[in-house]
Amino acid sequence: MTERHDAVTIIAAKRDRGELSDDQIDWVVDAYTRSVVADEQMSALAMAILLNGMGRREIARWTAAMIASGERMDFAGLSRPTADKHSTGGVGDKITLPLAPLVASYGVAVPQLSGRGLGHTGGTLDKLESIPGWRADLSNDAMLAQLEDVGAVICAAGSGLAPADKKLYALRDVTGTVESIPMIASSIMSKKIAEGTGSLVLDVKVGSGAFMKSYDDARELAETMVALGTDAGVRTTALLTDMATPLGMTAGNAVEVRESVEVLAGGGPGDVVELTVALAREMLAAVGRDDVDPADALRDGRAMDVWRRMIAAQGGDPDAELPRARETQVVTAPSDGVLARLDAFDVGVCAWRLGAGRARAGESVQAAAGVELHAKPGDAVAAGQPLLTLHTDTPERFDRALEAVDGAYDIAEPGADVQRGDIVLDHIR
Amino acid sequence: MTERHDAVTIIAAKRDRGELSDDQIDWVVDAYTRSVVADEQMSALAMAILLNGMGRREIARWTAAMIASGERMDFAGLSRPTADKHSTGGVGDKITLPLAPLVASYGVAVPQLSGRGLGHTGGTLDKLESIPGWRADLSNDAMLAQLEDVGAVICAAGSGLAPADKKLYALRDVTGTVESIPMIASSIMSKKIAEGTGSLVLDVKVGSGAFMKSYDDARELAETMVALGTDAGVRTTALLTDMATPLGMTAGNAVEVRESVEVLAGGGPGDVVELTVALAREMLAAVGRDDVDPADALRDGRAMDVWRRMIAAQGGDPDAELPRARETQVVTAPSDGVLARLDAFDVGVCAWRLGAGRARAGESVQAAAGVELHAKPGDAVAAGQPLLTLHTDTPERFDRALEAVDGAYDIAEPGADVQRGDIVLDHIR
Repeated sequence: MTERHDAVTIIAAKRDRGELSDDQIDWVVDAYTRSVVADEQMSALAMAILLNGMGRREIARWTAAMIASGERMDFAGLSRPTADKHSTGGVGDKITLPLAPLVASYGVAVPQLSGRGLGHTGGTLDKLESIPGWRADLSNDAMLAQLEDVGAVICAAGSGLAPADKKLYALRDVTGTVESIPMIASSIMSKKIAEGTGSLVLDVKVGSGAFMKSYDDARELAETMVALGTDAGVRTTALLTDMATPLGMTAGNAVEVRESVEVLAGGGPGDVVELTVALAREMLAAVGRDDVDPADALRDGRAMDVWRRMIAAQGGDPDAELPRARETQVVTAPSDGVLARLDAFDVGVCAWRLGAGRARAGESVQAAAGVELHAKPGDAVAAGQPLLTLHTDTPERFDRALEAVDGAYDIAEPGADVQRGDIVLDHIR
Repeated sequence: MTERHDAVTIIAAKRDRGELSDDQIDWVVDAYTRSVVADEQMSALAMAILLNGMGRREIARWTAAMIASGERMDFAGLSRPTADKHSTGGVGDKITLPLAPLVASYGVAVPQLSGRGLGHTGGTLDKLESIPGWRADLSNDAMLAQLEDVGAVICAAGSGLAPADKKLYALRDVTGTVESIPMIASSIMSKKIAEGTGSLVLDVKVGSGAFMKSYDDARELAETMVALGTDAGVRTTALLTDMATPLGMTAGNAVEVRESVEVLAGGGPGDVVELTVALAREMLAAVGRDDVDPADALRDGRAMDVWRRMIAAQGGDPDAELPRARETQVVTAPSDGVLARLDAFDVGVCAWRLGAGRARAGESVQAAAGVELHAKPGDAVAAGQPLLTLHTDTPERFDRALEAVDGAYDIAEPGADVQRGDIVLDHIR
């Protein structure tokens, strides 16, 4: 077969700040999936895209080409409307756990096709796998049946969705070409659109613990993804949310499940509740349910009922004791005062080093490893009071984990006026 | 062995417009040569370098690292001083053929380690191989003996010089990353410095038939290379020379040898003589012979004597009849007037399509293929008068070759004042 394009011409066009045609994009993504375009050609193109950008039409076409590389799912046969949520990832970000059953309790189908963690941000599947018996892998049929019956499902994404993205992401990871907003946006959205949801709410994190460190970058990413979803016929909105400090009082696996169950029981940390409710309101509005207050379903136990059914449907025991770490170590406040800063990235790295995350795909994680917070910015602290408790089964990890949080916090003088910032920074429709 | 750097950190530094340290450059060039850094990583780095540039220190270190990847030659044992010349390549650029024996006739050793052509610019070795019996491949010992005895040698560069450059050049060729001045400069200069010459004159072409289309780019390349040579202890100067129109009256293989012999016999086209003498003067000055006029050695036959000995030393017969093409076709002037433009690139593509060049490394070329010019810009022409004669052994090539020169020339009204531009545009020391 004669190829209708050649890679060098396409690379040179983007290198020289040109726009790629629809046909060039279709060809290069398909040819890369078929290995006709070589890795060294795609990585050069990825660097040119990273440095010279892509316009809205190019990003939309790139996303469509990645979707076309694999299968598409279809939720149209369900009796419930579908609402999906995606977070760009943060430290202590367990929101999917209370959110999916909460929204499902209003008659909505919430498919959460999730991943495992890599690096300092945890993975939703890693967290849930700390529940004895719980299984992440479901067949498509089992997933659809659970969506119809329970409403909420959190499971592993099948490899059939957007295989071009899978191949490209692995390449970008080793070639310094991850940090491109057009490519991050099309990577996320190709999977979400292929998944076939009717509506989507994006939780775009900004701050030290997030992928996007600056507000402007996060906003650009959010706007790019909202445009992509909208162009593809998916009702899409985004919240920009704070990730300067960890969400809630835990970062890890079992520790985050425990905290999520507290939220489902009507308690839990204020910031986790606030963000869960804000995202639920957004998802419910997308399916026409702006008449309800989702906080009600946390208070009256309806969300908890769906959680228990969701965990049980995937083999988990919602009443089982969660694993606890064999060893703990406490970091105490060095002086009296007000906690002025607790850095999300540092806490994320600490939890990762304790064994909650993995350095390479395929490694296992410790269910009980993680960090427990005893104060958040704005809280008064006394000298010697615990600030953090570190949990691990392998105490030789403490040294490197403690190093990670060495400069992670600042304590202001007693009585200092430390503002707690808003969790939701902006709203993009 | 634990690697002391990782590729992604180095790629990210250049992507983010940082400067690479000496140690990073040494490592990445060496690790790429060892295939520890993968092709897809080096191509991403090459694109980042192309778009974000390298500073003078980085380019010098990159060049040194490529030199260190292979062997170095040494001409210090010769009784003659060495003077080398490198051209960035053009159409009809046969200057090496008369120049090497001319300079050698003044007692200088002129090692011309040359390549074969790829694309629209011809290769010096391809041209000389049209001489019956002539061999491009010499052992190092044979080359040194010929330099000592004859003074001039034009032969194939051994694969032991700068193997990192060889590997990187092949990668850049398929990844759209050729057009980077720092990488072009370091590619050329790594081979020239490794070759061990005492002095070097660069002929940097500018215009449609050259790699550098703009004066500013050509000047930047020339200055970069002069700085690299000077920093490495090689006395280096550069001429910027015109490549808007072909050099001389021929572009091809045997046709260019024939024209070179005319120059060595004291005749030949004025522009070829002018550039040969200008470059010879530069090379002679570099070895302290600014007391002579190299035009003398063309007039009195001394250069021709060295040419005959040089050809014979490599198995060639300087008296042999050169091959002539089986078929010719003539392009005539459509009107009376003055030839105002004859495009070097178009003529180069025409000669290439006639069989004088190759599309892929390793293909053979036709010794007799090429283009003969009957007028140059500034010459008066009459309607119906031949402008070009196309030569090939394979007449099915005429159609595509004629297409290449379809818009290659402009004819101004009779009596129009068309200036012949200077060949030497600038001089960089």
